[in-house]
Amino acid sequence: MQTLKIFSDFAADEAALTLLKNGVAPHKIVFHAKPAPSVLGKSQPDPALLDADIAFGQPDETAILQAPRLRWVQLSSASYTRYDTAAFRAKAGERGLMLTNSSSVYAEPCAEHVFAFMLANARRLPVALQSRCADGSTEWLQLRNTSTLMRNQHVVILGFGAIASHLVKMLKPFAMQIVALRRKPKGDEGVAIITAEHLPQALAQADHVVNLLPDNAGSRHFISTERLALMKPGAVFYNIGRGATVDQDALLAALRSGRLAAAWLDVTDPEPLHPDILC
Amino acid sequence: MQTLKIFSDFAADEAALTLLKNGVAPHKIVFHAKPAPSVLGKSQPDPALLDADIAFGQPDETAILQAPRLRWVQLSSASYTRYDTAAFRAKAGERGLMLTNSSSVYAEPCAEHVFAFMLANARRLPVALQSRCADGSTEWLQLRNTSTLMRNQHVVILGFGAIASHLVKMLKPFAMQIVALRRKPKGDEGVAIITAEHLPQALAQADHVVNLLPDNAGSRHFISTERLALMKPGAVFYNIGRGATVDQDALLAALRSGRLAAAWLDVTDPEPLHPDILC
Repeated sequence: MQTLKIFSDFAADEAALTLLKNGVAPHKIVFHAKPAPSVLGKSQPDPALLDADIAFGQPDETAILQAPRLRWVQLSSASYTRYDTAAFRAKAGERGLMLTNSSSVYAEPCAEHVFAFMLANARRLPVALQSRCADGSTEWLQLRNTSTLMRNQHVVILGFGAIASHLVKMLKPFAMQIVALRRKPKGDEGVAIITAEHLPQALAQADHVVNLLPDNAGSRHFISTERLALMKPGAVFYNIGRGATVDQDALLAALRSGRLAAAWLDVTDPEPLHPDILC
Repeated sequence: MQTLKIFSDFAADEAALTLLKNGVAPHKIVFHAKPAPSVLGKSQPDPALLDADIAFGQPDETAILQAPRLRWVQLSSASYTRYDTAAFRAKAGERGLMLTNSSSVYAEPCAEHVFAFMLANARRLPVALQSRCADGSTEWLQLRNTSTLMRNQHVVILGFGAIASHLVKMLKPFAMQIVALRRKPKGDEGVAIITAEHLPQALAQADHVVNLLPDNAGSRHFISTERLALMKPGAVFYNIGRGATVDQDALLAALRSGRLAAAWLDVTDPEPLHPDILC
């Protein structure tokens, strides 16, 4: 067996890096001295990439194309925005360089996370967690009367990929009305798929709008003033995709006007959210 | 059709009472002037009960037996602790008085609520909701590294009734290892049922201990110092049954010692929890 050289700029603790090193043996892994600071931030070019066969992490998109031996880049993220250009695709295609992402690694935690948001919202956990009210008190009645059930509620999922696929399975026992927006329906989604022209009706009916869109030129500010205005009054918005897909000022306005009941954001633009932003 | 007289001491707002009144027509409903203050607190006896055919709410257990025409009591609660005595059963039996509870009304919200607790715990929502941390920051890494997935985790459900039945269906997509404690297994539970003698092994393996026990003489302080000591270090305890089934001092000690990672309590003993109790 040929021993390959793997270059990694993935940031992790010592224990995880040892696991990685032992896991790839007998192939050799070389760690970047200054790994990428976050899962989406790119690392500075490192000469060790120049004779690597495989790269793992968030390697610089220009440096990749200059590494003559490189044939496979495994991204540590689900996102591949930086690499998603016509120029990169063409050059990578020419030399047979494969680029794969880690979407299946994050799909299950992301789906559980957004589902946790949905249930926490329905059961009023942010209020309930602070509350120690007596049975039958006004506060208790208010918590009880404003809590909702998932059953029969309408959900729109924006973007159907690995996360949505998990989420749909998790929502199954709740007998909800689910539709998902997908550019190219494949027929194996397990829920009704809509394309953009039917989104306005779907948004008008949805109690829950779950945004899973990736960040690309077509999705930037997809959640716009216009689309927010199409949403059912009292709807709840969840974002576990990318912050840039939302016009955040428009979202804030929709929350402040009371049009939306709540927004649960795992991602914002920029990140972290400015401390002054309070709804 | 014979027109029946229904006595109600159920506390609700005007809109709900109107709905109830219209819903039972042409039967006549008489509302108690001072309804029961909460779903479990009993109302004071009211002479209107004396010629009622049906009672709804939380009527006084002695007054019920003195109402000569009464043949059906529909409790507004799932609990029926006050009526669950040999003397009441004997007297009600003698005169053919039927007593039914509302367990199926509360089962779904309770199951969603405790499931919301489980997911919120797994995804660290109490910390995450307060946090606005930068991608890649120490706080961000800590949140990420301490968040867990439901998959393959072990769950023990204490008490198998209507709530557990819903919960088991909700947990299905998560591929968890679930066992439930039930005195008399029926075979239709959809999960492995254990009886008390196998509880110690189950508690030793469980990542999640979900307490749904009703309050009765046999369940008082079921969660005792001894049973807490049997739980796996780092387990999470959830109570959506009744506060009295837990020895709360023992639970506090288990939390303070770090033996249990967390307790999510929808019920306490007494209620509300004393403001000084902080873990």
